Amino acid sequence: MPRSTKGAFTLPGESGYEALTLELAERWGADIIRDSDGTKLSGEIIQAGYGIYSTICIIRDHNEWASRNQDKLQQCFLITHPKVAVQDYISIYLMEDFFAEQFKVNDSKEALKYWQVYDRTTGQEVPRTQWNYERESGNVVITGITAWHKYTVSFMVYRIWEEISMYNHTTNNWDKEHLMQIDPMYTDTQTYLLDWMEKWCLAHPETTVVRFTSLFYNFAWIWGSDERNRHLFSDWGSYDFTVSSRGLDLFAEKYGYALTAEDFVNGGKYQASHMPAGQRKLDWMAFINDFVIDFGRKLIDIVHRHGKLAYVFYDDSWVGMEPYNDRFEEFGFDGMIKCVFSGYESRMCSGVKAETHEIRLHPYLFPVGLGGLPTFKEGGNPTLDAKNYWINIRRALLREKIDRIGLGGYLHLVEPYPDFVEYIEKVADEFREIKALHQAGKPAQLQTRVAVLHSWGRLRSWTLSGHFHETYMHDLIHVNEALAGLPVDVRFIDFEDIRQGVLYEVDVVINAGRAGSAWSGGEHWHDTTCVDQLTRWVHDGGTFIGINQPSAVEGYDTFFRMAHVLGVDEDTGARVVHGKWAYDVQDRHELMPEGATVKGKPQRYLTDGTAEVVLETEGNIALSVHAFGKGKGIYLSSFEFNWANARLLLNVIRFAGNEQHNAKYITDNVYTECAYYPESGKLVVINNSDQAQTTTIDTEHGMQRLDIAPFDTIITRIGAQASV
Amino acid sequence: MPRSTKGAFTLPGESGYEALTLELAERWGADIIRDSDGTKLSGEIIQAGYGIYSTICIIRDHNEWASRNQDKLQQCFLITHPKVAVQDYISIYLMEDFFAEQFKVNDSKEALKYWQVYDRTTGQEVPRTQWNYERESGNVVITGITAWHKYTVSFMVYRIWEEISMYNHTTNNWDKEHLMQIDPMYTDTQTYLLDWMEKWCLAHPETTVVRFTSLFYNFAWIWGSDERNRHLFSDWGSYDFTVSSRGLDLFAEKYGYALTAEDFVNGGKYQASHMPAGQRKLDWMAFINDFVIDFGRKLIDIVHRHGKLAYVFYDDSWVGMEPYNDRFEEFGFDGMIKCVFSGYESRMCSGVKAETHEIRLHPYLFPVGLGGLPTFKEGGNPTLDAKNYWINIRRALLREKIDRIGLGGYLHLVEPYPDFVEYIEKVADEFREIKALHQAGKPAQLQTRVAVLHSWGRLRSWTLSGHFHETYMHDLIHVNEALAGLPVDVRFIDFEDIRQGVLYEVDVVINAGRAGSAWSGGEHWHDTTCVDQLTRWVHDGGTFIGINQPSAVEGYDTFFRMAHVLGVDEDTGARVVHGKWAYDVQDRHELMPEGATVKGKPQRYLTDGTAEVVLETEGNIALSVHAFGKGKGIYLSSFEFNWANARLLLNVIRFAGNEQHNAKYITDNVYTECAYYPESGKLVVINNSDQAQTTTIDTEHGMQRLDIAPFDTIITRIGAQASV
Repeated sequence: MPRSTKGAFTLPGESGYEALTLELAERWGADIIRDSDGTKLSGEIIQAGYGIYSTICIIRDHNEWASRNQDKLQQCFLITHPKVAVQDYISIYLMEDFFAEQFKVNDSKEALKYWQVYDRTTGQEVPRTQWNYERESGNVVITGITAWHKYTVSFMVYRIWEEISMYNHTTNNWDKEHLMQIDPMYTDTQTYLLDWMEKWCLAHPETTVVRFTSLFYNFAWIWGSDERNRHLFSDWGSYDFTVSSRGLDLFAEKYGYALTAEDFVNGGKYQASHMPAGQRKLDWMAFINDFVIDFGRKLIDIVHRHGKLAYVFYDDSWVGMEPYNDRFEEFGFDGMIKCVFSGYESRMCSGVKAETHEIRLHPYLFPVGLGGLPTFKEGGNPTLDAKNYWINIRRALLREKIDRIGLGGYLHLVEPYPDFVEYIEKVADEFREIKALHQAGKPAQLQTRVAVLHSWGRLRSWTLSGHFHETYMHDLIHVNEALAGLPVDVRFIDFEDIRQGVLYEVDVVINAGRAGSAWSGGEHWHDTTCVDQLTRWVHDGGTFIGINQPSAVEGYDTFFRMAHVLGVDEDTGARVVHGKWAYDVQDRHELMPEGATVKGKPQRYLTDGTAEVVLETEGNIALSVHAFGKGKGIYLSSFEFNWANARLLLNVIRFAGNEQHNAKYITDNVYTECAYYPESGKLVVINNSDQAQTTTIDTEHGMQRLDIAPFDTIITRIGAQASV
Repeated sequence: MPRSTKGAFTLPGESGYEALTLELAERWGADIIRDSDGTKLSGEIIQAGYGIYSTICIIRDHNEWASRNQDKLQQCFLITHPKVAVQDYISIYLMEDFFAEQFKVNDSKEALKYWQVYDRTTGQEVPRTQWNYERESGNVVITGITAWHKYTVSFMVYRIWEEISMYNHTTNNWDKEHLMQIDPMYTDTQTYLLDWMEKWCLAHPETTVVRFTSLFYNFAWIWGSDERNRHLFSDWGSYDFTVSSRGLDLFAEKYGYALTAEDFVNGGKYQASHMPAGQRKLDWMAFINDFVIDFGRKLIDIVHRHGKLAYVFYDDSWVGMEPYNDRFEEFGFDGMIKCVFSGYESRMCSGVKAETHEIRLHPYLFPVGLGGLPTFKEGGNPTLDAKNYWINIRRALLREKIDRIGLGGYLHLVEPYPDFVEYIEKVADEFREIKALHQAGKPAQLQTRVAVLHSWGRLRSWTLSGHFHETYMHDLIHVNEALAGLPVDVRFIDFEDIRQGVLYEVDVVINAGRAGSAWSGGEHWHDTTCVDQLTRWVHDGGTFIGINQPSAVEGYDTFFRMAHVLGVDEDTGARVVHGKWAYDVQDRHELMPEGATVKGKPQRYLTDGTAEVVLETEGNIALSVHAFGKGKGIYLSSFEFNWANARLLLNVIRFAGNEQHNAKYITDNVYTECAYYPESGKLVVINNSDQAQTTTIDTEHGMQRLDIAPFDTIITRIGAQASV
């Protein structure tokens, strides 16, 4: 059973609770103590011999300077709601739809040149000579237009309230100064911030780790004027909040062409991460990434010169950092910290090239958790919450190493919850033991190598740019969450990777999502080269797993470009009077574990009748398998994460890689999973359920049968050494 | 209660059952006796003083001539299933997917020039020099191609078994000669048929009405080689079976451009009526229509010269006739006969410009009905069947006049069913009474005039080119069926009608269907003129009712082009991270009658939050109303026909036309409907249910309260005269 070890744990200390801080630091094996939003560390804690780690929010908390430099506040484009003209002119009040406490019209000469007016009925821009901004009224008046067409104004604004503080402020009805965010795109801001960073380091000699809680740019979060629709646009991966008139000017100089407001507002759709990016958006992202690295490195250099480490928090304000594009190491960050609710977020953290990977566990030590339910207060059960988060994350930790864990919040809140303190002690010990196994050698996995194909590829490894609860409507986040804990090699590829020949390094390609989305691939499927490469690769033995509307694009004889491989296509309407192949559903127990479900989608049909339907749901094809050359096409009409479905995905991958029989180190109970570390001879078995389970595992050293308590972890040595 | 009258009834006579024939002719008030498939009329019947009406199938029943003229059999294009090339050549067996008893490859020089080979991966045609037809093997070999692309061959075939006889034959396991269908496009065929028609008339002096059961071309019905997918393509409105190499040559001469196989096979999708037609398809339809009128008139002239009437049966083999394009009268037909299951089919018949409109009621006098269930045999209940068909049709008869009704089949089968005989007597009397009311004057209706907008417009009035059970997946057939019995003026318009200014003749436009379909309108919605006209017209007071994906087309800021009028749009993926307007559902009893249901569809959202959501189903907007200028946009996420939903549609139309209050002659019970004929002062009240109902009707002569038996009809005089 786990031996207690020390270290690799970041504890939120709390001034006024020094004894508790030091007691729990000891019990949980902390080596670093941190401050949190709203807490400070006292001298007694700081002097106790622990590493000290301090959070900074680099672009806010400068209100004095910001108020003197309001032309260097961060900016963005907004677009008015389309308005129908009933005569040949129209007047549009710009701020009608927007939260006046977040935005202020930027009508400076530099910004105004980027404003645009569009006829949205035709999709054509209205010439500048036909519209005028009336500063007094805040209206744009458009003249000489076509009655009955609808018009929009795209305009620039300053963002006058930093979004995260705005959220906390409005959620908690605070009554204090609004924090502004300053834009380091301006050289004055840069000068100010470099100076500030230097002074900060001098003022905090005790700090060993500087945690950049934010970098420079928040994810896009546009608030509306009406409480019935407060959050007009929220995208954790969008670059819409990186815009400034200076940025746009510099971009035009560097790239030789100018971006327009329309490149951002996109007719009111903005540039959601869930849609494939065009080259102009990709250019802008590269431009911002270049800037963020360039200026970020200067700040990190200061931190390093003061003998401190620099970690970065990969959440609210990460835009421009791009940990997965091979340039992340240029920052010089020493560590990557990720707040995790789900297994895929742990993989997202561990996959980044950095010295230290740290995850912030949940629940936070707050009275109320996400979604407003009680945690550390009456009605809460923080231990059960911790267990439920831990079962999602633990399976990912078994697959890839994380270096540190930690908590955040008000430490004193745990005092009335001794079972919580005890559970975290157990978790910390388990975590350190699992980390040690990784250090001895990688866990065993199947031979079958999996690639997830989408339009972002490696740049958006594991994530759909948001938390699970924000992206649950996409099949791919469910796939990612399942994969996060499966014993298979996983990589994320894009269409350029296919053109570069990546397919012959993998055995399975998964393409999952709604037609047109970044995840299904949208217009990338027009590239015949990719279709050819995939076709040949499957014919040679690969497996293409398509989920929902894989490879879907209009303009061909089939809607799914890979229909010939899948043996399944979707009728978008033209085949409504076509005969559909009748089929008998083939019961394949080795694919469908008990309890697994797949929601059927209408209009899917067998192309030539040779695909084998394994599951039908309400008369719709839900799972089918199709032989193509030496390989296979496998179709799933949808995928939803749960324990039985995670096993379904594993089974499908094993089937694809011809590893459905005799594979070792797979439990026979879908509520349990395991990992085997050959170097240390250790088998880790986990119970993902709140019920006791019994599970049998075929190993190289015979069958192992275990009883495992609810939520529990068993770490056992197996084989010859085990019998010593 | 109904007075018995005579006439307007076509009775199927049966040789060997002369007494029964004449008895029922008397009881049911028949004035014409007909033969049917499989029955003959004896001399005794023929001489009994009734009109005699005989069925002919003009293009089959000529096997002797057909076998000598196999190059004049009817033809069509077929396309092979796409096949993936694994090297730089491929061999494709043409007939692999097709029913060998229906088709024979037409590799004549005239036909071969229309064959095409396509690379379906790129969508490009493969040059003629790269492929060769090997007659012996039946294969096309394609060389010099790109491995991993998929290829198809589009080729011509003769159709060697007339489809309706093929269907009856295979369904009933007949063992007799296959009937072939000859193509009147060829001049030899024309000569032969004109001669045959002349001789037929001479041989049938007793016939007073010649019923053209078929015209020349069957609806497209492509059968497959595999019983798992026998009916590859079935479209009652498609012109795919009108093709011949001669027709194509004549078309090219006349229109100055040549059609290709691809214009018909359309990458395997063929040209379904449910999709909008391009100009090339419309040109071909016009070409065939012109030919069918031209040659059809010659046959009808012969019939007329022999002193007989010519009626046409508007079902299996009607293609090319187009009763709704203003040219129908050129044929010179004296009557239009329609087999009816549904109310819309009665309207479809009554709306045609012809002297006589006759409907063939169900059930047919056959032992087994459609779908294989017993009718006139043990287990059947033909009287109940008759009542259930009658309630669908009767409400349409109340709205528009039909001139004749009739039955078909084996008369002797009714002998054991005296209640059926009695019910038909009642129906026949009711029918004649309703017809008499129409002759006195039209029924009262609402002021609100309704137009159904789709890409076919008037050409496909009431129908989606098929029976209800074949088109049930389209919202529009449900709308049409509801409208068929509602007290409103209904017309069908297309986008050209809008450009021509038709909107100011109507009060409500309904656009209903799936995106891209002929019914929603598909690419027609790119026409900004139509969007402008509709926008202005609604602003001036019109109402646009959009159902499912109305006005949907990609390429604009909204998916529904009329989103600004509806206040509702559909997110196709780009708005998945956009805030959605919260709303409270407004309970509007005057719109939603008890029992009405609307299936919600996901991803619908309020554009600017001003639309009022009247019904939400499973969290999805199901019914909303939106003020726009003086008019309204009303959105329904789907529409399914039933009595409560028919009333829902009526309520929505009344609301649109501001007739929701104080409208007369509307029952207060959704299972009942009524029609008032001001000229005769008669109120007809019908019970559409199998339960007794009580209903109250506000009339100009006060409230009328009636109890009405299941399925029953009450015809009563109201007002001053009623009290005499």
